[in-house]
Amino acid sequence: MNAAPIGVFDSGIGGLTVVHALRARLPGESIIYVGDTARVPWGPKSPDTVRRYAGEIAGWLVGQGVKVVVVACNTATAHALPHLRESLRLPVIGVVEPGARAAVREDHDGHIGVIGTAGTIASGAYERAIRALAPAVTITARACPLFVPLVEEGWLDGEVTRLVATRYLQPLRDDHVDVVVLGCTHYPLLKPVLRGILGVGVALIDSAEETAAETARVLRASGIEAPPGGRGELRCAVTDAPDAFLRQAVRFLGEPLERVETIAVG
Amino acid sequence: MNAAPIGVFDSGIGGLTVVHALRARLPGESIIYVGDTARVPWGPKSPDTVRRYAGEIAGWLVGQGVKVVVVACNTATAHALPHLRESLRLPVIGVVEPGARAAVREDHDGHIGVIGTAGTIASGAYERAIRALAPAVTITARACPLFVPLVEEGWLDGEVTRLVATRYLQPLRDDHVDVVVLGCTHYPLLKPVLRGILGVGVALIDSAEETAAETARVLRASGIEAPPGGRGELRCAVTDAPDAFLRQAVRFLGEPLERVETIAVG
Repeated sequence: MNAAPIGVFDSGIGGLTVVHALRARLPGESIIYVGDTARVPWGPKSPDTVRRYAGEIAGWLVGQGVKVVVVACNTATAHALPHLRESLRLPVIGVVEPGARAAVREDHDGHIGVIGTAGTIASGAYERAIRALAPAVTITARACPLFVPLVEEGWLDGEVTRLVATRYLQPLRDDHVDVVVLGCTHYPLLKPVLRGILGVGVALIDSAEETAAETARVLRASGIEAPPGGRGELRCAVTDAPDAFLRQAVRFLGEPLERVETIAVG
Repeated sequence: MNAAPIGVFDSGIGGLTVVHALRARLPGESIIYVGDTARVPWGPKSPDTVRRYAGEIAGWLVGQGVKVVVVACNTATAHALPHLRESLRLPVIGVVEPGARAAVREDHDGHIGVIGTAGTIASGAYERAIRALAPAVTITARACPLFVPLVEEGWLDGEVTRLVATRYLQPLRDDHVDVVVLGCTHYPLLKPVLRGILGVGVALIDSAEETAAETARVLRASGIEAPPGGRGELRCAVTDAPDAFLRQAVRFLGEPLERVETIAVG
């Protein structure tokens, strides 16, 4: 047993979908979340820069006494996970491996699609993780750079979003994928539009839910779960002014957020 | 006379439209350009954070011996211009005043539209600058957060961009503006789409061109123009890896760019 909080971070607000999944699955765990909103987004930035930013934010979380770090950002997982696992003296969970495992589990005919930011797709992290489990599958990967701005603008459906998604998903439809990994923590908010274009026969893998399941396994395996019976607290911090984050948080978190603090990192 | 370079900076790549205009108007001037690509975009970030980033980048330029600093970014001009003018010991030119002056000059029936990033529009900088010159005009301002991602994705026309622009520009059409200020250095690349929606009767103010004209005036007034007859050099630096910047630069600059260096700032 260990009552210390779980540390979760993302480049911005998207990682709150992981927090939402964690709170649903592990209601007794306290969570400290950091969004690096002063430097968001990380998706288009270089591996070195993302590694530096992720290291700084994770270091701050460790300084707060967290018992485990969840990298709730696909780009940071793709670029920085090995580096964080080497440098931190506690379990570090990324979003890529759980998503890849779920994709292979749900796939029936050997065609898997992956969508994400430019950085995540260029890194090839999902391809590597999927091929390590299922070397023979065909993978169709596509960067969808406009999805994050569309979600942050609040345009979760409507003609524009449908047109953009139709264009981005065409290569996946051409290759008849039967599973699509939502390789960005913003994308679960687009599920209805994506399902409308891909059809109900295609499984959508929500890496937020898979990562929460993986976190539960790691806590159990390490014997560091929170004492039973309590209700975990949620503390949120950002690196820029909190207004926009506070306004948008409920959409990602599924519950209202009363307070966000600003911290100086980097 | 002064052969020292002009310093120009932006949060990313958009400021190259200002460099393009400067090189067309002042071919003898050398230019050092910095894009803060490790922290781009500045548009959605808080005034304090933008002020800090702009101060760091401008400080680097001053260290390189520039004779004047051009803030080729509407968000930075809106939030940081007075601060930069106080702290730097050389002329500092922003993009807002020249754009506001041109808008008032082109306006005939007292209805001016302004479009820009969330930060620029929320700052009210254009409204203040326009009202200082023409207190009685009606101003319709609209943030267009998807325009920058659309330009960076290279979707400069087509159905999606037309739909997004139609939605954003509706309030300006409802108010029958006869002038629209393109209050973001990315927006000149969308001119054909914007003109198609607004009609040829609406004047589009390109703040890049107006800022180049203002820079020429300041150099002349201060007697610090480059010696005549030479051909100015262009040096470009970014704060993240240069690949994506190099690939996209020609679209904004109108000439190919052979080399971009990476600098450590912030």
